Amino acid sequence: MNSDLPVESLESLRDRLRAFAKERDWDQYHTPKNLSMALIAEAAELIEHFQWVNGDHSHILEDKTRQSVEEELADILIYLVRISDKLAIDLYDAVNRKIKINEGKYPADKVRGSAKKYTEYK
Amino acid sequence: MNSDLPVESLESLRDRLRAFAKERDWDQYHTPKNLSMALIAEAAELIEHFQWVNGDHSHILEDKTRQSVEEELADILIYLVRISDKLAIDLYDAVNRKIKINEGKYPADKVRGSAKKYTEYK
Amino acid sequence: MNSDLPVESLESLRDRLRAFAKERDWDQYHTPKNLSMALIAEAAELIEHFQWVNGDHSHILEDKTRQSVEEELADILIYLVRISDKLAIDLYDAVNRKIKINEGKYPADKVRGSAKKYTEYK
Amino acid sequence: MNSDLPVESLESLRDRLRAFAKERDWDQYHTPKNLSMALIAEAAELIEHFQWVNGDHSHILEDKTRQSVEEELADILIYLVRISDKLAIDLYDAVNRKIKINEGKYPADKVRGSAKKYTEYK
Repeated sequence: MNSDLPVESLESLRDRLRAFAKERDWDQYHTPKNLSMALIAEAAELIEHFQWVNGDHSHILEDKTRQSVEEELADILIYLVRISDKLAIDLYDAVNRKIKINEGKYPADKVRGSAKKYTEYK
Repeated sequence: MNSDLPVESLESLRDRLRAFAKERDWDQYHTPKNLSMALIAEAAELIEHFQWVNGDHSHILEDKTRQSVEEELADILIYLVRISDKLAIDLYDAVNRKIKINEGKYPADKVRGSAKKYTEYK
Repeated sequence: MNSDLPVESLESLRDRLRAFAKERDWDQYHTPKNLSMALIAEAAELIEHFQWVNGDHSHILEDKTRQSVEEELADILIYLVRISDKLAIDLYDAVNRKIKINEGKYPADKVRGSAKKYTEYK
Repeated sequence: MNSDLPVESLESLRDRLRAFAKERDWDQYHTPKNLSMALIAEAAELIEHFQWVNGDHSHILEDKTRQSVEEELADILIYLVRISDKLAIDLYDAVNRKIKINEGKYPADKVRGSAKKYTEYK
């Protein structure tokens, strides 16, 4: 059985999460609505690690914090892949389309090096 | 130059996002703190699509909503990969560790088919 | 000294929170940016209590959950009042303006009793 | 009829929101679950105004941004009061209890003036 092999792609992660939910009969709870709530709850746990520190120092993490941050990032990816699976959305297709949109929206020569322009464009 | 090739892996997405930020001189804004804020803002845009619908119907999306949802999911992945890059965290390593933790925390034979147990275990 | 009197208005809450921060020298951390992060982190803790339950049952809370929900609601109010204070925004002025906007945006006779219209109007 | 009088207390806001929902037959959508989602969506709109600016400058808002921030704060208060009403929770009771908890958790003489202690205590 392959289910113990490490996950190395979004597809294998998707399959592992499907099996995980199926074994626990959790598909009934995994509506897109509920999963979107679970995802934002993890995103907030990530936020908590950074809320009182200065942005310039926010890449410096103590070991324990670093481990927690890694877990929050993993949880976000897990719920992101799970909700995409439930909605039959291909994440790479979606991201390639979004990159094209962003390239049109933020032309490098117009937004370069300016916070003002940056936020205006946002 | 390969930068127009479609993204097909988290690594190629990471590289594309690095180039995108570099061309715009945006690394100065991409602190983990700021990126965690951007990520949760996208997670909230996802939430908005589901907040007034019944969970059981939340997988049924009109075309326009579906397209927006795809964009939010793409944005979440983009910020997730970007923050992981800034923190030098390997997302697959993190997710494999988290899956192991979850397997220990929610043993299939104990939590199966019970919302009560499910939430208690959560 | 009156600081132990129960808070009974947004103004007295504002004053209490000012004193609380001052005694701890925490104003340096209480930028609107940081407070907006703290607020959303509390909003997410609220979300967690409801993420796996059915909406129709989400008003039924076990005692322990109820107490936690009360604490999250209190925390949200605390950060909301604190950020308003830091930005010199009067919450009642803001809310009265917003109610007027909402009344124009969602005319009762047009949106009544229809989820479709409701979400369209949103 | 008094419904056009400005709101001046959490109680009068609660009553106004009750009337607003009743006139639109929206109580059916206002489950605590859905309201918690709406609240976090507003909290995220607040976050968006601060995500790329430096914390030290985040209290300086251009007029247009200031107006938007006021609207987000109003929306947060609206959903906070609405969810409290649906759960029959008195916000001032909750906040008075929470202040007591915080006073015990963060004794002024121990946490004063230290980010390190501050975050440790959090």
